[in-house]
Amino acid sequence: EKKVDAAAAPSPEKSAFVKLTYLERSALAKCSVAKQLFELMASKKTNLCLSIDLTKSAEILRVVDEVGPYICLLKTHADIIEDFDGSFIEGLLALAQKHNFLIFEDRKFADIGNTVTLQYSKGIHKIIEWSDITNAHCIPGEGVISGLAKCGKAFPKPRGLLLLAQMSSAGNLLTPPYVEKVWGMATASDFVAGFICQEATLGGNSKLDPAFIYMTPGVQVGSKGDALGQQYRDPDQAIFKDLCDVIIVGRGIYESPNAAQTAQSYMDLGWSAYEKRLTPQ
Amino acid sequence: EKKVDAAAAPSPEKSAFVKLTYLERSALAKCSVAKQLFELMASKKTNLCLSIDLTKSAEILRVVDEVGPYICLLKTHADIIEDFDGSFIEGLLALAQKHNFLIFEDRKFADIGNTVTLQYSKGIHKIIEWSDITNAHCIPGEGVISGLAKCGKAFPKPRGLLLLAQMSSAGNLLTPPYVEKVWGMATASDFVAGFICQEATLGGNSKLDPAFIYMTPGVQVGSKGDALGQQYRDPDQAIFKDLCDVIIVGRGIYESPNAAQTAQSYMDLGWSAYEKRLTPQ
Repeated sequence: EKKVDAAAAPSPEKSAFVKLTYLERSALAKCSVAKQLFELMASKKTNLCLSIDLTKSAEILRVVDEVGPYICLLKTHADIIEDFDGSFIEGLLALAQKHNFLIFEDRKFADIGNTVTLQYSKGIHKIIEWSDITNAHCIPGEGVISGLAKCGKAFPKPRGLLLLAQMSSAGNLLTPPYVEKVWGMATASDFVAGFICQEATLGGNSKLDPAFIYMTPGVQVGSKGDALGQQYRDPDQAIFKDLCDVIIVGRGIYESPNAAQTAQSYMDLGWSAYEKRLTPQ
Repeated sequence: EKKVDAAAAPSPEKSAFVKLTYLERSALAKCSVAKQLFELMASKKTNLCLSIDLTKSAEILRVVDEVGPYICLLKTHADIIEDFDGSFIEGLLALAQKHNFLIFEDRKFADIGNTVTLQYSKGIHKIIEWSDITNAHCIPGEGVISGLAKCGKAFPKPRGLLLLAQMSSAGNLLTPPYVEKVWGMATASDFVAGFICQEATLGGNSKLDPAFIYMTPGVQVGSKGDALGQQYRDPDQAIFKDLCDVIIVGRGIYESPNAAQTAQSYMDLGWSAYEKRLTPQ
């Protein structure tokens, strides 16, 4: 009921926020990769991110080639891929160029500054070299952001960071005082592209700053959750009601019998919800 | 001053806790790998964990072979190793057997249950296959523990999990209400071996349950911190005053000119602090 009331009498912040197109947001963004992604979303007319949690590189590349035309962003978990190697990354980057999307390694960095700089740039995965965007939990304190920013800003291509502000899993510990701290850390760093969240208001802790990009997981049509605490909602709820910018869809697409067709329908639902949001109420 | 007062008039919980030897703790532990580690510490007379944050496998194996005789546990970051492969793991497991220590991959899992099961058992690193112990942040909710426990308990060798209850990095967000939740999740799962913390009281949120093992990072002699927010204290402070069981020492050992000698001196300091703790005050 609180949400219905808020929609009936939107705050000045919300009224200003919903009027802005992704292209206008691109001009406002401080993080270079957020600018790039907003532009791409506007030109390609998609706010859909595919989350690919498969473990074989050939299967991943096959699904990404099918779904690539409909997405602005591909979210990966490099560390679950059994045969991860240089040729897989070459294949992935070729598909990103062919279909025009960015890559987001969902690493959820959560260590001290010295360690995350090594985890971001070293090892087998060398995330910084192929992933435009990555993400982090703020739990270790501000050092996790400055550690990643130190490498990311020195890298020759645009790189940026999403902060985990809300999660869709049951019983998570991202409480309002925690989110307030996340918001404070985000506004202090131009390496921060935006947030992983459930709603752009971050439960009342965000000033709905249009310079940030708000991405939301746990989006699926016709499913309420899984056995391990994941909770779902639909694209209209996520974009129109909860004011997120990018919907992240995983199993709902790659486990469907026709991944391309399903992706296209998620893209259409996400884009309609965005256009509805732009329309004066 | 609070700490001096607490030492002068210890609580009944503290009085009971400090009397127990590692061997007695082994009998009390519910997690199989905690039992194993307590026993190993008692027989090898060391509560030292080497944290190895080097990026070349040959260098890691060389240092571990030198330092192996003095440690109960080796803490790794597999994802920063440039040439990680099967032969490195073979080498590491051979050294673990030769020198009698366990392995703890400091992965800091922090995702939903479905994802962490994949991150734990799949990918290039296959952490579950070689790492006796791993760790997780409770931020995603209880699903992170049940996801890891599902794989860990089905694995044919003892496996266990440490929960991040406190960190040594500046401005971290592990607040008392957060730690209270961590404690609740720990006591609900026999896959939890213990905690990564600064003090076994977890800032007043632990009941000093001797069935858990309390490990502490940020231990170094003669250094106060680094440029990215890491803060240090010495072994006596960590074991005698803060009641931790295992001291985790990294750069203090492997960046020293004689790693073996330095490790031996940390081992001696850690063991003396433990014996002092056992001595009636």
